[in-house]
Amino acid sequence: MAEIGATPGGGVTRLALSREDKQARDLLVSWLGETGADVTVDEMGNIFGCRSGRDVDLPPVIVGSHVDSQPAGGRFDGILGVMGALEVLRTLADHGVQTRRSVTLVDWTNEEGSRFAPAMVASGVWAGKLDRDWAWARTDAQGDSLGDELDRIGYKGELPCTSWPFDSYYELHIEQGPRLERAGKIIGVPKGIVCLHWYGVFLEGTANQVGPTPMEGRNDTLVAAAEMILSVRRLPVRMGGDLVATVGEIRNFPNSRNVIPGATHFSVDIRSWDDELALRAWDVLKDELEKIALENGCRIRTEVIWRLQHNEFDTSLVELVHETAETLGYSTLSMVSGAGHDASYMAMIGPTAMIFVPSIDGRSHVEVENTSWEDCAAGADVLLNCVLRSAG
Amino acid sequence: MAEIGATPGGGVTRLALSREDKQARDLLVSWLGETGADVTVDEMGNIFGCRSGRDVDLPPVIVGSHVDSQPAGGRFDGILGVMGALEVLRTLADHGVQTRRSVTLVDWTNEEGSRFAPAMVASGVWAGKLDRDWAWARTDAQGDSLGDELDRIGYKGELPCTSWPFDSYYELHIEQGPRLERAGKIIGVPKGIVCLHWYGVFLEGTANQVGPTPMEGRNDTLVAAAEMILSVRRLPVRMGGDLVATVGEIRNFPNSRNVIPGATHFSVDIRSWDDELALRAWDVLKDELEKIALENGCRIRTEVIWRLQHNEFDTSLVELVHETAETLGYSTLSMVSGAGHDASYMAMIGPTAMIFVPSIDGRSHVEVENTSWEDCAAGADVLLNCVLRSAG
Repeated sequence: MAEIGATPGGGVTRLALSREDKQARDLLVSWLGETGADVTVDEMGNIFGCRSGRDVDLPPVIVGSHVDSQPAGGRFDGILGVMGALEVLRTLADHGVQTRRSVTLVDWTNEEGSRFAPAMVASGVWAGKLDRDWAWARTDAQGDSLGDELDRIGYKGELPCTSWPFDSYYELHIEQGPRLERAGKIIGVPKGIVCLHWYGVFLEGTANQVGPTPMEGRNDTLVAAAEMILSVRRLPVRMGGDLVATVGEIRNFPNSRNVIPGATHFSVDIRSWDDELALRAWDVLKDELEKIALENGCRIRTEVIWRLQHNEFDTSLVELVHETAETLGYSTLSMVSGAGHDASYMAMIGPTAMIFVPSIDGRSHVEVENTSWEDCAAGADVLLNCVLRSAG
Repeated sequence: MAEIGATPGGGVTRLALSREDKQARDLLVSWLGETGADVTVDEMGNIFGCRSGRDVDLPPVIVGSHVDSQPAGGRFDGILGVMGALEVLRTLADHGVQTRRSVTLVDWTNEEGSRFAPAMVASGVWAGKLDRDWAWARTDAQGDSLGDELDRIGYKGELPCTSWPFDSYYELHIEQGPRLERAGKIIGVPKGIVCLHWYGVFLEGTANQVGPTPMEGRNDTLVAAAEMILSVRRLPVRMGGDLVATVGEIRNFPNSRNVIPGATHFSVDIRSWDDELALRAWDVLKDELEKIALENGCRIRTEVIWRLQHNEFDTSLVELVHETAETLGYSTLSMVSGAGHDASYMAMIGPTAMIFVPSIDGRSHVEVENTSWEDCAAGADVLLNCVLRSAG
């Protein structure tokens, strides 16, 4: 799977609904077919592979994650949970095990959100928290819409994208942080996912020739943005708690070395377990950004792009993951997920839990992202045993 | 001419050796042919249109500028000097005037340097200050080389790109700053051009997922770059004199809203009439940038991309421009050019002068760049009369 969209640095670029995403989907569908699973695709492109249980009237167990990646991202983020779920289905098939409940693998469309913002859009629609037509209308940097791109790669299915009752949802994933490695533990058991707030900041000033324009009276939007980026960096210290705040993306216009920047746009990402703290942080920051814009003679517009509340997982499922891991002999660590996952939306509508495995050096969303095969196997082992317990 | 590469905002995008540059060159060549000028193209793509004088053994008068533009640049920068020179040739033709010396129009390739750095590369080769093969090897952001692109658009001529003796070089240009307008004068008479120093700053840190990565211990190159941009902004105040310093261009990687930036690159442009002050400014700045990089746990590499000394124009030619303008009844202002021009290199090898006309609101390198037709005509009038004096 990691050969699809492989990058020279050992990672993958498999942006949502790209040619590489289509290739990865096709491969997943063929592998699912080999396990005897019944494959369906819904109108948001979510792929389901159902291995029927003895009692098909019972709500099934859902397991999965996503095959799309960040640009120059890693070989584990998302796809580990899909391959882990596939391994569960293969293991059941290999051993001729028919569970009581059906077990359904899922690949959620566009989890990353790096081509089409926001992230986790298709699990959001499935959970009834986002509107399907709005989601279809999201566009990438080239202006292509998510709906058109689904059509183009042949993954806009017939099935309505609406949730059906499920017994439990499990998502195996790399931790994407340094905590497991630092604690020397193998299985992370998150109690939930922090809130995710995304903002856009748009500045307009006065572009001009750099040489003949005096320093006084310039309205340089990149200088204003620089002050603002440092303001974002100071925000976690200022607000306290577990808040993290990051500017990951910047676009500067006309971005020519001999032109004073006349327009600059950047993103702000704020996260915390405490939703109220994160909202207060934005209020504080927004005031500061407006003050900086004024001082630099620039116009400012801010936009709330996305706000997802913190989500707590199901207490009994979290306990089941914990017990299963310990029973299998793997050390565990209770934690909070700082990254968003499709499990955020799933937790809003049904019993949900995640299983984390260590990220080497805590690196993720980069080509060197890595997890030892032993740890991957441990995660899949816990996933399989949780599924067996839930599915009967 | 302004229809070629016209932008919705009233400017032009006519990047060096683009399709639009080729169209503009073709049009210029056809117009030159109509004046009876003898057109030649050298191996750097410089276009010469020679109207023979009575004594072809005498060094000619050269007049011109460039047809290429900034991305989303203005309708006057460069092309005004080419159209002014064309108008001189047309006027001589219309009135059947044959001067003693030949009068040669020139369009210099890639003056802007925004597609292929550095700027003024073709006049630099012609003046013997830059190497032809090195210039051909300059690449744009897509990796296409200047030499290949010259070939592609059919403007890599046979003529060697080396200077020949000339009597004088005149370049009509917009001021690109606010001084003429503020002083209420029509003709700017620059005594020379400030030095231009271009640098590249390359930062490497650690890209990572924004959520699960604690604030402490991040090596965020965009945060480091933000501190550095403010350091550049403070440099002119710190150094004093007429120094200006600007960051016009920034590139951030992977530039995704949920990834901590792991690599950032930006440009620094420093200018002054005082070469030593500009060199000292870079020493001071470089120390500060290295300190900031260290504090942020980022690796830094700096590169001297281009250093062009300040250049003084020929005293008698500057005086001639001044006298000619006053005689024609146009108010004048002695000044220094803060922008680089092909006249920088020409001044190193022969008698050179420029004629400036006002930029409305001092704006340049932007779509709203403007100069009144009356002022354009005044500039062309001064150009014609200077050429008549020099060419006899």
